[in-house]
Amino acid sequence: MTEVTFKRLALIGIGLIGSSIARAARQHGLAEEIVCAARTADSRRVAKELKIVDAAYDDPVEAVRGADLVIFCTPVGTYSKLAEQIAPALEQGAIVTDVGSVKAAVVKAIGPHMPDYVDFIPGHPVAGTEKSGPAAGFAELFINRWCILTPTDTARDEAVEKLSAFWSAMGSKVETMDAEHHDLVLAITSHIPHLIAYNIVGTADDLEDVTQSEVIKYSAGGFRDFTRIAASDPTMWRDVFLHNKEAVLEMLGRFTEDLAQLQRAIRWDDGDTLFKIFSRTRAIRRQIIDAGQETPEPDFGRVHSADESPKKP
Amino acid sequence: MTEVTFKRLALIGIGLIGSSIARAARQHGLAEEIVCAARTADSRRVAKELKIVDAAYDDPVEAVRGADLVIFCTPVGTYSKLAEQIAPALEQGAIVTDVGSVKAAVVKAIGPHMPDYVDFIPGHPVAGTEKSGPAAGFAELFINRWCILTPTDTARDEAVEKLSAFWSAMGSKVETMDAEHHDLVLAITSHIPHLIAYNIVGTADDLEDVTQSEVIKYSAGGFRDFTRIAASDPTMWRDVFLHNKEAVLEMLGRFTEDLAQLQRAIRWDDGDTLFKIFSRTRAIRRQIIDAGQETPEPDFGRVHSADESPKKP
Repeated sequence: MTEVTFKRLALIGIGLIGSSIARAARQHGLAEEIVCAARTADSRRVAKELKIVDAAYDDPVEAVRGADLVIFCTPVGTYSKLAEQIAPALEQGAIVTDVGSVKAAVVKAIGPHMPDYVDFIPGHPVAGTEKSGPAAGFAELFINRWCILTPTDTARDEAVEKLSAFWSAMGSKVETMDAEHHDLVLAITSHIPHLIAYNIVGTADDLEDVTQSEVIKYSAGGFRDFTRIAASDPTMWRDVFLHNKEAVLEMLGRFTEDLAQLQRAIRWDDGDTLFKIFSRTRAIRRQIIDAGQETPEPDFGRVHSADESPKKP
Repeated sequence: MTEVTFKRLALIGIGLIGSSIARAARQHGLAEEIVCAARTADSRRVAKELKIVDAAYDDPVEAVRGADLVIFCTPVGTYSKLAEQIAPALEQGAIVTDVGSVKAAVVKAIGPHMPDYVDFIPGHPVAGTEKSGPAAGFAELFINRWCILTPTDTARDEAVEKLSAFWSAMGSKVETMDAEHHDLVLAITSHIPHLIAYNIVGTADDLEDVTQSEVIKYSAGGFRDFTRIAASDPTMWRDVFLHNKEAVLEMLGRFTEDLAQLQRAIRWDDGDTLFKIFSRTRAIRRQIIDAGQETPEPDFGRVHSADESPKKP
């Protein structure tokens, strides 16, 4: 692992991801000084109380001053304005990156504002939980998770290497690809799953015959699984869909086409088609577990006993 | 809790649910003798090796002979033929029940074959994991989960009470309702979630080869959650959809209608609609957690560190 220490790490935004970076960077000694900018006084207060940053600023310009690593950790819809605002204060040779779930739109939002004496390298750690805010972060969030970098043509190789080493030091595996390809892959592995989870929870919320309380009571039949990612931050996800429209609509088209096929099979009592489709899917989960991206425990390792002791076997 | 002990408990089928009942019934002393019938020699061997049954029969008729509690634990598509087969061997006063995920179809499949000297009480424990087979079961599976009974008009009250006490003793909370209402509620809380999970995993599986390995790598962005329930038993789920067609198609219609609204909002950059829908869903998860039907741990309590120690905080 390459030795990597930054002088001053500036996090623009200190929610789940920003605060997890702060904690991991501190734990692994990756920055001499860690500061953040946050819009709300409450976030700044929590970040300071938890001692995850050395200073918390209202003004992002103050945060980036003197920083050799700047990470955008706010919803992607805020990037363009923030980039314009901080650009004049950026240090010569600073690395500027982000953690947004879309990448082509980020290149367009931040890129034009960047002076040519900084290295702009968009990034996306594929990690998270359904929780939000500075108190929700933890240093282990990135361990064994992939971080995708989509370096721009102008970024220097040594800057890309240094940023890769930073993520590796926090436990991530790092991959680089182009922004458009990232957006297509993440549309199916992340954006569509969130969309349909939000959607089914909304559908259930609208029901009249089935009382709301019954949806809650019998959610262990499968529904509760979807409520987890549907509890994710609404602003962040609104921005993801607005900024990855093309790939999301393409993948959504495939999803609904396939769903229509299943619907037809149910209507026409076509058990063979159902069985065939339902039999394809176990192998994928097995591969995900083998790749270290999922727990092998049944039911995600949820505790099944009243006294909260681990379940058997 | 009512004192409840059966003389001989016969489980038709010894998969995840059947073997969990066997374990829980044994643990809580709910039956003097526990036997099963299983189609495959392998299941019978495993059930005997694990000592979860006293005897395992090839022929379900042998299993139900002398039993005062008979539980169908096979896919619902097998019920009708099995019911016809075992009917002549059923004991006077036996309780006959099942664990199927649909109920109106079960009434039609089993009901007509039942002699009037037995109490037929369809049932559905809303519990499970994505694993199948006798080795996958565990005694704690039903703790704090709801078991829904849909008693037929002819079942005696004292039989319903005794069966309720049996489920309560295994840790379940018991509710009764009519079969049609069950099927509507479960369509949205269980059947549609499984259908769309199977569907998105299928959609991903169809993507061009290059993308396939990337789906695995970046699945932590949300996709992996869906692979869990999509790893459920294909035969069981084929039968669920074939036997709850009307309610599933009704709920699926609502789901796709709502999804079209989201699709349109994305296409037309309607961030307000997206935000509004995405903001409704956190409250439902909170209620599910408060109702004891879900873990309050972020990310289902998945382990986030390389050394498999519990994550913080």
